[in-house]
Amino acid sequence: MTFTFTLEAEHGMARAGVLETPHGPIQTPVFAPVGTQAAVKAVEPRELRELGATLVLANTYHLHLRPGDELIAELGGLHQFMAWDGPILTDSGGFQVFSLGELRSLDSDGATFRSHLDGSLYRFTPETSIRIQHNLGADIIMAFDECPVPNDRAAVRAALDRTHGWLARCVEEHHRSGDPARQALFGIAQGGIFPDLREESARFAAEMDLPGYAIGGLAVGETKAEMLATLEHTTPFLPTHTPRYLMGVGSPEDLVHGVARGVDIFDCVLPTRVARNGAALTREGRINMRNRQYAADPDPLEPGCTCYTCRTFSRAYIRHLVKASEILAHQLLSIHNLHLLLTLMREMRAAILGGTFTDYANSFLAAYQPVGAQKGALSIPAS
Amino acid sequence: MTFTFTLEAEHGMARAGVLETPHGPIQTPVFAPVGTQAAVKAVEPRELRELGATLVLANTYHLHLRPGDELIAELGGLHQFMAWDGPILTDSGGFQVFSLGELRSLDSDGATFRSHLDGSLYRFTPETSIRIQHNLGADIIMAFDECPVPNDRAAVRAALDRTHGWLARCVEEHHRSGDPARQALFGIAQGGIFPDLREESARFAAEMDLPGYAIGGLAVGETKAEMLATLEHTTPFLPTHTPRYLMGVGSPEDLVHGVARGVDIFDCVLPTRVARNGAALTREGRINMRNRQYAADPDPLEPGCTCYTCRTFSRAYIRHLVKASEILAHQLLSIHNLHLLLTLMREMRAAILGGTFTDYANSFLAAYQPVGAQKGALSIPAS
Repeated sequence: MTFTFTLEAEHGMARAGVLETPHGPIQTPVFAPVGTQAAVKAVEPRELRELGATLVLANTYHLHLRPGDELIAELGGLHQFMAWDGPILTDSGGFQVFSLGELRSLDSDGATFRSHLDGSLYRFTPETSIRIQHNLGADIIMAFDECPVPNDRAAVRAALDRTHGWLARCVEEHHRSGDPARQALFGIAQGGIFPDLREESARFAAEMDLPGYAIGGLAVGETKAEMLATLEHTTPFLPTHTPRYLMGVGSPEDLVHGVARGVDIFDCVLPTRVARNGAALTREGRINMRNRQYAADPDPLEPGCTCYTCRTFSRAYIRHLVKASEILAHQLLSIHNLHLLLTLMREMRAAILGGTFTDYANSFLAAYQPVGAQKGALSIPAS
Repeated sequence: MTFTFTLEAEHGMARAGVLETPHGPIQTPVFAPVGTQAAVKAVEPRELRELGATLVLANTYHLHLRPGDELIAELGGLHQFMAWDGPILTDSGGFQVFSLGELRSLDSDGATFRSHLDGSLYRFTPETSIRIQHNLGADIIMAFDECPVPNDRAAVRAALDRTHGWLARCVEEHHRSGDPARQALFGIAQGGIFPDLREESARFAAEMDLPGYAIGGLAVGETKAEMLATLEHTTPFLPTHTPRYLMGVGSPEDLVHGVARGVDIFDCVLPTRVARNGAALTREGRINMRNRQYAADPDPLEPGCTCYTCRTFSRAYIRHLVKASEILAHQLLSIHNLHLLLTLMREMRAAILGGTFTDYANSFLAAYQPVGAQKGALSIPAS
């Protein structure tokens, strides 16, 4: 049955499972590369497949504006349009709309905003977001929610009430005009950094009996410690038999910490954005390929890595491509960075299945130097 | 033996042959994709291989400035550096230097110029150009020449004398410090659009008994009719038993006209540059993928084309990628455009071997609409 989630193993809060979708199974924990505009930047679909990607994310806001979800529906839907025959997830467009700042105004019914492309006026409501996502045709679609500043209690409280009302409307619209066997609607629990609000929101969402739930409103300004503490007291209030999705999170250390706190699904632009900035993710941390130290370095980006980039090219060559502003630099670094995250997820899954997750996670974090933080500054919950 | 050129068939002036190199055979006529900075823009080496590319060009001027030919030599040479294990050709750097305009000054011994990257001062002589090309390690290297405005007889005359003197110095330097079994030095015949000067230069170069010859100084401002007339009265004065290389030419119609006039090797940035401008080459002409007419077009760029792009994506999707400034647009259009030119070369080769080249060429030109010209405005010489 589509959207059945089978929990295969648990290790502390960490879980390994399989989510069935109309476009194949997703083994969890999973990292979803982001194809904002129906394309993972600088990576071909056949390369995503080669990297072992299963789930790919696309953005409702961007695709509604350009080329238009109705056009994509006419052309057979997002899978056919972007030539990705694996599972796809679309967000609700809410986060992008709220990020527009002065270009949008919010009311209890929805949001009115101006396109960042040409200034023309648009309106999203829970119902329009769901109908746009029906047109796009992703396997997993998301409820329309409001994502407030996470540490302003009054704002979080108000957003929570709005988000809950909208969630009920999304569920209703999806059952009215959608096909729950073809597309799974995930709810989103909000609540900022406030444990009681998180619990309330997780419980409210869980009441809807949906095939999956996201933890929203994190990685938007709070500290890492606040994010992890919030995760720890949110996931216990979400159902165990459905997948949990932490939106917009994807640094290597955050993936490990998220899995350790019961998250099953992640997405983030980080690996491809970092690539376009000329940096490589390695198991020791991020390295800036513009650095002179790599100028004559014959080693691959990460010795031992099995990705096409590392099997084929030296750091010296990649540095040259970055310095020379060659598009190929974006391609090769994106392949490597995605490979690291996808491999990390597979390794964590194997460790959960093998009962060694805590050791694996601690060992990874001991070697990994996060940007602007100390190695292993945040710890893995005891299993 | 390396650099043996075996002529397999002739049809009128058109020829099919095989040039042996230390990195494998090159079946001619051949089109060489250009990797100016040791990378074919937006195309991975494994994709070049999949496209059936054999010979790839890289630019001496660019690589001398960045990352430096000595660094590339330290790292094992250009093949290893850019991970292309097929044949490579480097130009002499002359054309780029002369294109710098006010940034360079010329004397009888060589050229002094300022880097377009940081303004620092450099000097190229025939000897330094050859030694840089030794460091790069391409299979085919080019003599340092001067490329004047093609219709100023006095300038062409003066450049010819200089070019001939420099050719002799290049040959001497290559034998002194190089390895002619590892790298073939090609001479370059100049002479602008003047038949007597072309004959003189072709005869002079041929006297050097080199493994190949280029026809230089074309496609630099003269009309197409002048270019083709010049080709027609130049190739007969070049040896028949060595390959002939027309530098910097690569529109589909020019490839057909060039082969019809006895050219064996071509290179050009056109297919990848056109791709980055959002246009596709087809057998009917160039199409601008920004055009609204493709917005909902489910067909591939060119129906019947077997390239990855056409097997996988619609015009509507490619148009979306172009409009959305996605890097993937450059990748997919570059693959298709290179595929068309490489396929065209293979088809011309088969037609020469099959004795049907004139029909093939006329048929191709009757269907193909060149930019800014009428279909079939220039004709194929009778065979």
